[in-house]
Amino acid sequence: MNKSINELLSAMTLAEKASLCAGLNMWMTKGIERLNIPPVHMYDGTNGIRKTNSDEEMGITTENVPATCYPTGSAIGSSWNTELLHEVGVALGQESKAMDVELLLGPGVNMKRTPLGGRNFEYYSEDPCLTGELGAAFINGIQSEGVGASVKHFAGNNQEFEKMVTSSEIDERTLREIYLSAFERIIKKSDPWTVMCSYNLLNGTYTSENEHLLHDILREEWGYEGVVLSDWTAVNDRIRGLKAGLDLEMPGPAHYNAKAIIEAIQNGSLSEEQLDRSVGRILKLVERVTGNKGEGTSEDADYHALARKAAAESIVLLKNENAILPLHPETLGSIAVIGRFAKKPRIQGAGSAKVTPTRVDIPWDEIKNLAGENITMGYSEGYPEDDSIHDELIQESVTLAKNSDVAVLFVGQPEYAESEMHDLQGIDLPEHQVKLIMAVAAVQPKCIVVTSSGTALAMRPWIQHVPGVIHSWLSGQGMGRVVADVLFGHTNPSGKLSETFPVKLSDNPSHMRIRGENGKLYYREGLFVGYRYYDRKELAPQFPFGHGLSYTSFSYSDLEVAQTNTGVTVSFQLKNTGKRKGKEVVQLYVHDEECTWTRPEKELKAFVKIELEPGEKRKITFDLEERDFSYYNTKYNRWVAETGYFQISLGSSSKDIRITERLHCDFGKEEITFHKFSLLSEWMSDPAAKAELEKCLNDMNEHVTDKVYLNDEFVGFWEDFPMIKVFQMFGQQWMNERSPDEVIHELIARVNQARN
Amino acid sequence: MNKSINELLSAMTLAEKASLCAGLNMWMTKGIERLNIPPVHMYDGTNGIRKTNSDEEMGITTENVPATCYPTGSAIGSSWNTELLHEVGVALGQESKAMDVELLLGPGVNMKRTPLGGRNFEYYSEDPCLTGELGAAFINGIQSEGVGASVKHFAGNNQEFEKMVTSSEIDERTLREIYLSAFERIIKKSDPWTVMCSYNLLNGTYTSENEHLLHDILREEWGYEGVVLSDWTAVNDRIRGLKAGLDLEMPGPAHYNAKAIIEAIQNGSLSEEQLDRSVGRILKLVERVTGNKGEGTSEDADYHALARKAAAESIVLLKNENAILPLHPETLGSIAVIGRFAKKPRIQGAGSAKVTPTRVDIPWDEIKNLAGENITMGYSEGYPEDDSIHDELIQESVTLAKNSDVAVLFVGQPEYAESEMHDLQGIDLPEHQVKLIMAVAAVQPKCIVVTSSGTALAMRPWIQHVPGVIHSWLSGQGMGRVVADVLFGHTNPSGKLSETFPVKLSDNPSHMRIRGENGKLYYREGLFVGYRYYDRKELAPQFPFGHGLSYTSFSYSDLEVAQTNTGVTVSFQLKNTGKRKGKEVVQLYVHDEECTWTRPEKELKAFVKIELEPGEKRKITFDLEERDFSYYNTKYNRWVAETGYFQISLGSSSKDIRITERLHCDFGKEEITFHKFSLLSEWMSDPAAKAELEKCLNDMNEHVTDKVYLNDEFVGFWEDFPMIKVFQMFGQQWMNERSPDEVIHELIARVNQARN
Repeated sequence: MNKSINELLSAMTLAEKASLCAGLNMWMTKGIERLNIPPVHMYDGTNGIRKTNSDEEMGITTENVPATCYPTGSAIGSSWNTELLHEVGVALGQESKAMDVELLLGPGVNMKRTPLGGRNFEYYSEDPCLTGELGAAFINGIQSEGVGASVKHFAGNNQEFEKMVTSSEIDERTLREIYLSAFERIIKKSDPWTVMCSYNLLNGTYTSENEHLLHDILREEWGYEGVVLSDWTAVNDRIRGLKAGLDLEMPGPAHYNAKAIIEAIQNGSLSEEQLDRSVGRILKLVERVTGNKGEGTSEDADYHALARKAAAESIVLLKNENAILPLHPETLGSIAVIGRFAKKPRIQGAGSAKVTPTRVDIPWDEIKNLAGENITMGYSEGYPEDDSIHDELIQESVTLAKNSDVAVLFVGQPEYAESEMHDLQGIDLPEHQVKLIMAVAAVQPKCIVVTSSGTALAMRPWIQHVPGVIHSWLSGQGMGRVVADVLFGHTNPSGKLSETFPVKLSDNPSHMRIRGENGKLYYREGLFVGYRYYDRKELAPQFPFGHGLSYTSFSYSDLEVAQTNTGVTVSFQLKNTGKRKGKEVVQLYVHDEECTWTRPEKELKAFVKIELEPGEKRKITFDLEERDFSYYNTKYNRWVAETGYFQISLGSSSKDIRITERLHCDFGKEEITFHKFSLLSEWMSDPAAKAELEKCLNDMNEHVTDKVYLNDEFVGFWEDFPMIKVFQMFGQQWMNERSPDEVIHELIARVNQARN
Repeated sequence: MNKSINELLSAMTLAEKASLCAGLNMWMTKGIERLNIPPVHMYDGTNGIRKTNSDEEMGITTENVPATCYPTGSAIGSSWNTELLHEVGVALGQESKAMDVELLLGPGVNMKRTPLGGRNFEYYSEDPCLTGELGAAFINGIQSEGVGASVKHFAGNNQEFEKMVTSSEIDERTLREIYLSAFERIIKKSDPWTVMCSYNLLNGTYTSENEHLLHDILREEWGYEGVVLSDWTAVNDRIRGLKAGLDLEMPGPAHYNAKAIIEAIQNGSLSEEQLDRSVGRILKLVERVTGNKGEGTSEDADYHALARKAAAESIVLLKNENAILPLHPETLGSIAVIGRFAKKPRIQGAGSAKVTPTRVDIPWDEIKNLAGENITMGYSEGYPEDDSIHDELIQESVTLAKNSDVAVLFVGQPEYAESEMHDLQGIDLPEHQVKLIMAVAAVQPKCIVVTSSGTALAMRPWIQHVPGVIHSWLSGQGMGRVVADVLFGHTNPSGKLSETFPVKLSDNPSHMRIRGENGKLYYREGLFVGYRYYDRKELAPQFPFGHGLSYTSFSYSDLEVAQTNTGVTVSFQLKNTGKRKGKEVVQLYVHDEECTWTRPEKELKAFVKIELEPGEKRKITFDLEERDFSYYNTKYNRWVAETGYFQISLGSSSKDIRITERLHCDFGKEEITFHKFSLLSEWMSDPAAKAELEKCLNDMNEHVTDKVYLNDEFVGFWEDFPMIKVFQMFGQQWMNERSPDEVIHELIARVNQARN
């Protein structure tokens, strides 16, 4: 484009403007040749590029153009490594350019409210701080290459069941603190070129036309100036959407809506300024995409190596009793590898995020390769594809395991269970797999289980019977090699769970009504999502948020906390106290000890992943801002940090807190504004108000039978009564024709006068 | 009154009518001498009459006119005995007449959402069926004596914290199934002369002016024609209240509101019909109160005996390991009685329900009396009144216990902890009492704990260390004697918990945000209150709803269930299989196996308390109605029973189900009404719709690149997509200028045509 956006806008006809507000087809925006405006090419992908063979096809259930398949969201979310996310983002930007992809429709950053969410595997975490930091790093990586990102799905789309006809009913505080928080962080830290709205309604209005969400919050509060595009077919009322700030409808061409826009402009129900605002943003996107190509070379990059590196940071060592891992090949004569997934690994989920990978590491091959020629390798399928019961498969596995020195079982959620459009049915392994593990563990105590799934798994009862568990998530095309590396200790695992693994499904906070009713899904657990819930309920999870073992160990010491002008500084010493190089994910949690409103026991506010050599020690510093101490107060409609004591804790997981300090933070105080319903206790807490109240009661007591004295007994009982009601109760003989309203307003006026 | 209500209304001036809409003072309505309309005298009391010494005083913190103190709501709720409630109601009616009380301000029937609710002791249960049946029996008893009852607090007032400025935010289904259900049953089964509105707001509007609650539901749906009166000072906007159907404001005289009413009539903002409606109802109440005195003698009644009888049905034997109870005096040389409550029993809670009792049985005296002269009795105070730590009191108790044959400890919530206006701080015993129990149990294995509280107690960790626990609730002036009777087996305990006793406070469903924020308290657990929650979460309580032990045992057999024209008939045989006469509370629960909306695992739908001699057997029959199988469907705004399988279970507690039968019930089926957002799966489920859809897609496929075939793969993935969005996704090349709205509506029209 050679002209400025304003020039282009002036040059465009109304029909051209209207037409530009929807795509040309499934994957392109419209170009306008006469004005030299090129189209933008966009494709799916949260963990890789899903470019279809034609721009007219959806391609969900077909093979597409091969591309690198990186770990899915929940896997890479467990890396807790912002540098890694940036690196993967850069690589995806480069690969996009090589594939003529100008806008990549990711990342997905919705919160994991329930482990049953069908797209959970695409999302990073149950925590908004972790999600926001990772998402921003990923986007900064992609966009540094001149390729646009699309943060999605905005907002409140946390499961699949009837999502297109269901309103997520989320109270404002929960919305701000949990469901919008990661988006806010990402908008502020990485300015994604596009934001994709979600399919669902939010508090009664489709997000594609939700003014509170798209305009008040996204544009006005957060200052977002990029393009908001619809999830595919998420548009309902196009005019309402434009007014709210939905710029681009996908897919197109949606000629009927271009017509509707023109009519709306002509009959005045939509102003041309409103249309220009959206068209201008789309033109700006075209400008960014075409004029701002980053450098980066795509030719030489070894994307597969990066896919392995990413998997190595993502995989979580959950259990390692008696240091069963890593395996020492020199002490082993034979290894039994059991389970279909060893030869047909699950590396990703299904739906729009499903990439056709360039190649796939097979665990069986990689283990065999690393084991070397001196170890006898045996394989047994263990369970069939459809998870129907086949006892002979179990028997075969048991025989193999009994005759081997160690057994490695590959199990997990079946392929069909995890897909966009469908929530999971449960989080237990299929019955057949559970039987398999129990049977193998009964004959082979050296039993290591490698689990695959994109969302939390319940591991009852089998977890008690095996000494080693590695959760491999759905970690992309390099997963096979990395699992082998972890098994043999070539990689020291450093992933930490990005979501809580509960003991059983019903422990989950959203369990009570998992499906919407009459088009409404109430987010009943409110703020208490993920670890916030397990903390509050004093309910032990199987594995807590942030948990992950290493082959080395770390110590935390010398914590120092101090309030500064701009926030709070936290520093401490981290030391690798083991015998191997390793990475620790340091997690900083804040707890507000005395907030007037209920707050979670702890909230993640910062984290860092640090690699240390054995014996190495490093001082680590975090700078927290006032916002990190704040909650969203719906009385004032803003973030509020209350003066008082806070606990600042550093830990290796949300349940493995190593070091804690209390700090009194001064964030100022608000004067009480008295109103009609102010409580007796509020009147008593303010000296001027109390004095006026006493004068008033002295007068009242001269006229009533049942007199009011502000002694401990009276105040103790009636403190929660609004003062106006105290007059209604005890002052009737005195008020006479005056109303309680008049009495209380006169009293408030006197207090305000006394204060001035 | 000699004139009809219509005559009176015609004879009254506007000022007289307006003035009648508020009380004369704290406890009376206004009389109008010129028209021979007498005042109505009303007083507090859910477990007895709290008549103040003067009609101008509130008297909450003073002694009042002595009256019989019956077991509080949660105690008598645990009797599960409707006949007993009726009998107590009759006695209270008689006592009221003797005390010139014409309207008794009870019962309180709010649901126990949280064990911290400050008025929980006044309420019957966490279950609406139990509460409703008991409340109706109680009211029928009172009103049979010509004294009015006032069912309260209507509605959604389930805790005390800032209740007067807090809106209970309750979704409509939960409101109907849980919070209004007991009121509905009571209105229909006992027609209380008055209903008292609550202090709180309900979904944003004060209940005292809530049209949906007071008019749409109470009057229109339930057909209630009695008087709605305000809780004391609950009136906010008097005109709005009158319009909604709040007839009587208390306390009075509220001259300012009489003035406001006159003004509103004069300026047309309130119609005289609306005013007449309320005045007419108040006149009808006067008529009922004055003209309809029942027979009943008050002179000879032995109310104290009835108070004991009621306590005997209420007290719950929670634990009885190795049949430690009943005690056999002939085998005992000495008994240690420990704990202040043995000499100063807690028999009721504080606030407006607090009765000045006519006499009080003292446990120590009664135990001593029943023990006889051959047993050495020892007493130790155990803990001080304020629950501060005094180790010497513990030491003294330990010494006494060690030197006795058995120890009976009286413990419980302190007096100051349970009061109207203040929620409890916790449900654990005070630290000192826990130390005391642990110390005594360590030296005396024959340790029986008698607990007092009006709401659930947590008993961790001490419950594991004592073999016997009796929960005495706050069971009125006869409690001391009854506990002694239970200890020695003169009374066979038959109470069953009317609420779940959790292991710890945080297990409670409402625990996450117990206090409102910014004036809103979300009932986040929805339907899952009490046992409905513990079932759903698979969370074991300390003692489940409906639990209570007996000194005998019962067997259940021969269950038969059958659907009839009007509902379902259930019958079975109950047998006393033990060696003592005893009472069993049979509980009938229903579970809907295949409802499209989430329903609780079980819901109490009927119960009966039966007394059997040893070896006696009786056939028991329940008749269930369609409503007992229904849930409140907010799509249709009515109760819906869905055709399908139901489980009908009979049990001795909610967790001790003895016998279950599955039954397929046919309640008819609804034809799908297709609309714009009907899902692909709905289209596929209806043959006519599917046929029309296929025709439509055949046409579409001729014009598009990415064709849609309704095969398993396609439908499997897209079934949750609304059909309109399938057109948006795949039909763009075909629709052209037609909008998806036009396409879908044309298709629906074709389906409707094909159906006809």
